[in-house]
Amino acid sequence: MNDSEMRHAIGIDFGGTSVKLALVNERGAILVRRKFNTSDAPGQQGWLARVEQEVASIRAEAAPDTQIVGAGVGVPGFVDFERGYIYELTNVPGWTGVHLGALLEERIGLRTRIDNDVNAMALGECTFGAGRTYQHAVFVTLGTGVGGGLLINNKLYRGAHWMAGEIGHVSIDMNGIPSPTGFGGVEQYVGNRRIVERMEKAIDSGRATILLDLVNGDRSRLSPKVLKEAADKGDVVALEILEYVTDCLATAFASITYILQPQAFIVGGGVAEDAKLLFQLLRKNVEKRLSAHFSKRLEIKPAELSNDAGVIGCATLALIE
Amino acid sequence: MNDSEMRHAIGIDFGGTSVKLALVNERGAILVRRKFNTSDAPGQQGWLARVEQEVASIRAEAAPDTQIVGAGVGVPGFVDFERGYIYELTNVPGWTGVHLGALLEERIGLRTRIDNDVNAMALGECTFGAGRTYQHAVFVTLGTGVGGGLLINNKLYRGAHWMAGEIGHVSIDMNGIPSPTGFGGVEQYVGNRRIVERMEKAIDSGRATILLDLVNGDRSRLSPKVLKEAADKGDVVALEILEYVTDCLATAFASITYILQPQAFIVGGGVAEDAKLLFQLLRKNVEKRLSAHFSKRLEIKPAELSNDAGVIGCATLALIE
Repeated sequence: MNDSEMRHAIGIDFGGTSVKLALVNERGAILVRRKFNTSDAPGQQGWLARVEQEVASIRAEAAPDTQIVGAGVGVPGFVDFERGYIYELTNVPGWTGVHLGALLEERIGLRTRIDNDVNAMALGECTFGAGRTYQHAVFVTLGTGVGGGLLINNKLYRGAHWMAGEIGHVSIDMNGIPSPTGFGGVEQYVGNRRIVERMEKAIDSGRATILLDLVNGDRSRLSPKVLKEAADKGDVVALEILEYVTDCLATAFASITYILQPQAFIVGGGVAEDAKLLFQLLRKNVEKRLSAHFSKRLEIKPAELSNDAGVIGCATLALIE
Repeated sequence: MNDSEMRHAIGIDFGGTSVKLALVNERGAILVRRKFNTSDAPGQQGWLARVEQEVASIRAEAAPDTQIVGAGVGVPGFVDFERGYIYELTNVPGWTGVHLGALLEERIGLRTRIDNDVNAMALGECTFGAGRTYQHAVFVTLGTGVGGGLLINNKLYRGAHWMAGEIGHVSIDMNGIPSPTGFGGVEQYVGNRRIVERMEKAIDSGRATILLDLVNGDRSRLSPKVLKEAADKGDVVALEILEYVTDCLATAFASITYILQPQAFIVGGGVAEDAKLLFQLLRKNVEKRLSAHFSKRLEIKPAELSNDAGVIGCATLALIE
């Protein structure tokens, strides 16, 4: 089947710093890309005008007979998927209570689906990426926080009010770190900033470690990536931190497995890329925390779509929902 | 509609101590009941012969035109629901690797469904009991352990290998009480025996409490029921224990809510009957552990089918699955 016979959709990955657009075919391949800075198109009107313009430019570049069935938008915040309505966005001002679906359909003349960005990524990974062979899978993205999306019976499960999959708030310690979402939520232990704090604390303790050498003494460059690099070189301090971080994650994964028994966890986000050791430790710690009945029937795999997970996932919303 | 126009099914609640049978109509009403001691019909052949006999006796008692569409069996252990196959039962010897579905169909000539007993109860409660108005609900039963069943999109969700809903193993403390299923599983804190241990410890500490008075000094009679009685009378020690137990449960409920966002938790089992105070404390502690976005959209309700939850749930397996 060549491209002119396939269905296509436009994915619009609405991030706090940039907005990425892509024309994606029904096999998950990207044909045309666009990108602009979120701050260059402020407010609803600015954003809508710019997206309309970029969509027109994508259409102009695409082959004339390209069949575009719709558009999907992934946003960083809470949405009502059914109504295409944004309750509010986490780090983008001016987007509280917006019927983005209707507004965008009017501008671009395409059937439009709106969802949470992590749900969109989960759908993309479970359709075209590491989760494509599973019916029941949990997608996890590691970054500033820990996000999640649930595939149940081969469909994205959004919960009673479109808020399911907030696995960063799963408690790993009922008396643990307090936050507005409870006590001991796993992202309070494994979010990027928490990892860097642990690295700094270890450095301050005076223990022998190459962590600071790897950034030429510049603490502002410490990151989970540096941690992985040090651990790969056998740095004992880095290994300890990675062990701890993966064990915290494993606690949440084990709880989720006892509840849902998915076939697989698909783990994405910067920390999880090129992270063989992280996956080894994660697997080991999950096995420690699950009975064999469960652990032998569970896979833990890295995501495959990397930086394109967002736009591909957004397009997938329009292709299959 | 009268009974002769309704569909019926036979529920068979296979427990470790007794086996209960009932003829149930499609509105969840019980028309005929039977019961025998599990030890009186040992082994597969003994059990099958006795069940065949009881089913015949139920049919003999039912009106001649009663339309019986099938039978459902709930068993205390792991099953393959699709194949009607028992992997093993927890406290009943002689039931490892048994195709109970096929064996029973041959004996009684009715289409037969086999499931885990907690799943059967969950299905019964979500069809005819406290969960009948929900599409997404979590059924929880409190007893020796903590069992669970998940209603997702109005259907029982059984997971990738029929093992989902083991919410007693959800960890509330990654460094908590070890067990064969991991660390800090909530049932290690709120199972009946654990509650009694806490009561005994409080008594041993010499603190003023009426716990021992309520059982006339007989420690062997201490139970969660006695705890509730003392708490209802304002006993400070009992209230503290109930606060702790409900907070442990609330930790697991909050984690489950962040993952699945059900509309409601339906809580059954002896501890949860006539337990207004327990539900008040549970609600308070769940609210402490959830952001308002989630807690205001969540109900926590007592189960309604009480001792009949088992047989009604089993019959429901045959009526709707």
